Amino acid sequence: MPSPLHVAFVAGPEGPWRIERMATLAGEALPAAERLRLIEGPDAATVPADAWLLRGVTSNARYSNRREVDALAAKPNVLRRPAATRAALIPIRKTSAWWDLAQDERRAVLEEQSRHIAIGMEYMPAVARRLHHSRDLGEPFDFLTWFEYAPEHEAAFDEMVGRLRDTPEWRYVDREVDVRLSRD
Amino acid sequence: MPSPLHVAFVAGPEGPWRIERMATLAGEALPAAERLRLIEGPDAATVPADAWLLRGVTSNARYSNRREVDALAAKPNVLRRPAATRAALIPIRKTSAWWDLAQDERRAVLEEQSRHIAIGMEYMPAVARRLHHSRDLGEPFDFLTWFEYAPEHEAAFDEMVGRLRDTPEWRYVDREVDVRLSRD
Repeated sequence: MPSPLHVAFVAGPEGPWRIERMATLAGEALPAAERLRLIEGPDAATVPADAWLLRGVTSNARYSNRREVDALAAKPNVLRRPAATRAALIPIRKTSAWWDLAQDERRAVLEEQSRHIAIGMEYMPAVARRLHHSRDLGEPFDFLTWFEYAPEHEAAFDEMVGRLRDTPEWRYVDREVDVRLSRD
Repeated sequence: MPSPLHVAFVAGPEGPWRIERMATLAGEALPAAERLRLIEGPDAATVPADAWLLRGVTSNARYSNRREVDALAAKPNVLRRPAATRAALIPIRKTSAWWDLAQDERRAVLEEQSRHIAIGMEYMPAVARRLHHSRDLGEPFDFLTWFEYAPEHEAAFDEMVGRLRDTPEWRYVDREVDVRLSRD
């Protein structure tokens, strides 16, 4: 597990990723924008806002047990593959009812009831991903997940997020935006 | 569980708390300083550094199960009691070996092997405390714990931190400073 990496997702007129569409699944939408760029490392804290700006930080595993950590480590999960010209940024906020749960209760909803880790793993390595935590940074969302995949895996990606949205865990999601992007 | 509260601990010539002594138990020391003040809320992010400045954020429970959350909630834990004129700030950093552990492994070390939650609860309500997370903020320590107690409970507080430092969990601590404070 590398040290926490701070990442800023900056939407505006510039950036390598073209925003193809944004769907608001719950709560407030994000403003329209043309393009997106990712700023990683110390500069993420100071980059000025544009159309919108979301910040997060990679962190240690919060729910995965040893068996799951080892299974995940055995699956290639590589960002910036040349063939992966499609991406999704899915910012999510969870309810205070979620955050009021004890650790064992959140784990039970996330995995024993919802199979969140297992479902995500089924779509690796086609869908690479990186989870960023935002809640403790005072951000409007709790999590920002970034996904990259080749165009031929878009249907699989849609299936994956559809399955996750049907789980008991998603009853605790009160804001969700699905931003789809492409690059040449 | 309230929303995350950002807190800055600012050491310098001013502040209601007088720094009585600082002991470095592991790793690098902190510079000497006379007094300490706490800045809570949005101002914590922008307060300028003085002799030293440490930032953290309260967050959701990371290890406590439902039984423990309920037991903790049943114990009064109130900061700023008039009689609690002694305080301790204990910044801690853990090794990468700790952060590489899976969630179930960290839980097992923290509670089943070390009884961290149970030991802490034995000293409530005499010792009030608040845990702040710092690692995901890019800070030099991973955790800042703030304790307040009356002078007659100082021996009990020393006993508590001594017991915790003897646990398997503390083998993962590679930087620890113990700052003791008082106010009139």
